[in-house]
Amino acid sequence: MAPPIEVTESAVTILERLRVRAPRVHCITNSVAQQYTANVLLAAGALPSMTISPEEIGSFVAGSDVLLVNLGTFDTQRRAAIGAALDAAKIGQKPWVLDPVFIERAPDRARFARELLSRNPAVVRLNNAEFGALSGCDPAGDAPERFAQSHATIIALTGTADLVTDGARRAKIVNGDPLMALVTAMGCAGSALVAAALVVEPDPFVAASAMLTVFGVAGEVAAEDAGGPGSFAGAIIDALHGLDGATLRRRARVS
Amino acid sequence: MAPPIEVTESAVTILERLRVRAPRVHCITNSVAQQYTANVLLAAGALPSMTISPEEIGSFVAGSDVLLVNLGTFDTQRRAAIGAALDAAKIGQKPWVLDPVFIERAPDRARFARELLSRNPAVVRLNNAEFGALSGCDPAGDAPERFAQSHATIIALTGTADLVTDGARRAKIVNGDPLMALVTAMGCAGSALVAAALVVEPDPFVAASAMLTVFGVAGEVAAEDAGGPGSFAGAIIDALHGLDGATLRRRARVS
Amino acid sequence: MAPPIEVTESAVTILERLRVRAPRVHCITNSVAQQYTANVLLAAGALPSMTISPEEIGSFVAGSDVLLVNLGTFDTQRRAAIGAALDAAKIGQKPWVLDPVFIERAPDRARFARELLSRNPAVVRLNNAEFGALSGCDPAGDAPERFAQSHATIIALTGTADLVTDGARRAKIVNGDPLMALVTAMGCAGSALVAAALVVEPDPFVAASAMLTVFGVAGEVAAEDAGGPGSFAGAIIDALHGLDGATLRRRARVS
Repeated sequence: MAPPIEVTESAVTILERLRVRAPRVHCITNSVAQQYTANVLLAAGALPSMTISPEEIGSFVAGSDVLLVNLGTFDTQRRAAIGAALDAAKIGQKPWVLDPVFIERAPDRARFARELLSRNPAVVRLNNAEFGALSGCDPAGDAPERFAQSHATIIALTGTADLVTDGARRAKIVNGDPLMALVTAMGCAGSALVAAALVVEPDPFVAASAMLTVFGVAGEVAAEDAGGPGSFAGAIIDALHGLDGATLRRRARVS
Repeated sequence: MAPPIEVTESAVTILERLRVRAPRVHCITNSVAQQYTANVLLAAGALPSMTISPEEIGSFVAGSDVLLVNLGTFDTQRRAAIGAALDAAKIGQKPWVLDPVFIERAPDRARFARELLSRNPAVVRLNNAEFGALSGCDPAGDAPERFAQSHATIIALTGTADLVTDGARRAKIVNGDPLMALVTAMGCAGSALVAAALVVEPDPFVAASAMLTVFGVAGEVAAEDAGGPGSFAGAIIDALHGLDGATLRRRARVS
Repeated sequence: MAPPIEVTESAVTILERLRVRAPRVHCITNSVAQQYTANVLLAAGALPSMTISPEEIGSFVAGSDVLLVNLGTFDTQRRAAIGAALDAAKIGQKPWVLDPVFIERAPDRARFARELLSRNPAVVRLNNAEFGALSGCDPAGDAPERFAQSHATIIALTGTADLVTDGARRAKIVNGDPLMALVTAMGCAGSALVAAALVVEPDPFVAASAMLTVFGVAGEVAAEDAGGPGSFAGAIIDALHGLDGATLRRRARVS
């Protein structure tokens, strides 16, 4: 339903704009993912901050352009920080992205993620198991579309193929490489990139589709010379940093 | 005392089984080691989870195959999480590995580690200084054997050479490379690999000996082309991911 | 004002001494920077520890040679840990380094950093924005000198060029590479290196100037073959580990 050419051209534009604008992305993310997420954001031109202290997160979010809320390594402090951060994001009219990590493994976390849906995330980035826990549905057929529509958000479902929908439009992205699943925090870092893209692209469906295309293409480029997941983790950051429009146009496989 | 050929063949089998079975390894580990531990587990075929929130750790352990308890960056939250995690592991009859990091530097942590011995770890992976703080003995002579026997556990003592004993059997592994000591969390990651091996090998003495052999061989392979500890950190993950039976059989030095 | 040759020769000597002495550096640092800081310290020959538990930090600092206090990801636990750690450092007469990360983004953190100045840090390592928030002045003219003098500390201001002053002397270091700004925790790791140098060089002005020269030269060497910020993050650790006196003397650009 989405014009694929539009997603690719938007990817080129978003990447250029990120490098010029250097948006500030505040990340409430799990301790496993903090370092990698920061390095991926820096490679794309964005400026990460990572504090989760409830007392000072309000002023960090107020000084940022967008917020990422990732539920990995969920604890009391992060729960309090999320509330304060979302309040600050609402006041500052800043978009935010929800990444409901591992909610299929912990009922409390799933409940909390469902509550967060009422606070209007611009995009929810998740995998099939997490979608099941969030929606109660299998991600087959038009379940993602129905869920996106009923919650007025974008669902960005990543896996072997990525599917992005706002309920009316759907983009399918088949870029990427199996090595991406062998590096911890790769999905978390992808959510952070989507958050950064929201600053420079007003349509969140386009921002999410384009940025997952960018990340998938970077993964393919990196996989060509990587000797395994260890060197790949650095190589995808190199590839993202060096990615140009010509490579994106040649490699993007969006339908 | 251990038939070396048995350890090597078990290493080959364990590595194959990990890749097929993809066991879930829940890690309570220090914040310095979380990312590296996760990436090493993924490279070996295992699926890591890392939450330390006392409220939800029970459900994570219940959904895992094995538990790792690492005492680095020890704090109130982790202490509570460890109790809840061990309760869940006992109910689910899941084995667990103790890694008493840096207990020679903090008396409280050493006391806590000694208490944990009564909760029946399948394996205790530690270095010489930590063994001294845990047992009150120098790791010379048959001190490791006596300690393993009296606590009905496996002692896996790593260093220039690795020594594994269940009190009756002893394996000595001389694989590895000095660069392994120059990457933070390398020992922590080794403990996590031993935990993963417990899922696919019922004899914890064999699991620990074999997995330390695997890790040491991966280290040797990685050191051949590494330019220093920075590239080595990624290269050992590549080597672990690509390790095959022929390389293991050719390089294993177990006696 | 500083004799450049003296800084370069001190850099050579400090690097040699670190490798022999292997000083213990206790780091209270943010969770984003812990792993990278530990690996950079190990590459330079130092032994890092990272616990932030208020209950045991006293015994860790007592067993260390120097302390680093980094305010990134500032929270209640770290605030308590800092107080206990500084008490232990004072009793043990151990020097400490302050790295007031991101204080320009959070007024409470800036206030806390200003309070810490009264506890006599040997060196304050920071960037221009952080200097502004700490001192209330633009870092132009002789503002760094005046601030260093009035607080009886060393100001090490890093950026495109690094400036180190004790109020009377000033060193300007123009080594380094733009890729250093694209790896998270690079500045934090630099502060940790300065802390390590304090153990083997009694003049903190010389220690800070020399160690920032070392790190900048390592960055230049690493940048020569790096494919981007991902591989650069590992390459600078390799370069630091392999750095020799001849390379330092050839490349150091201190005035």
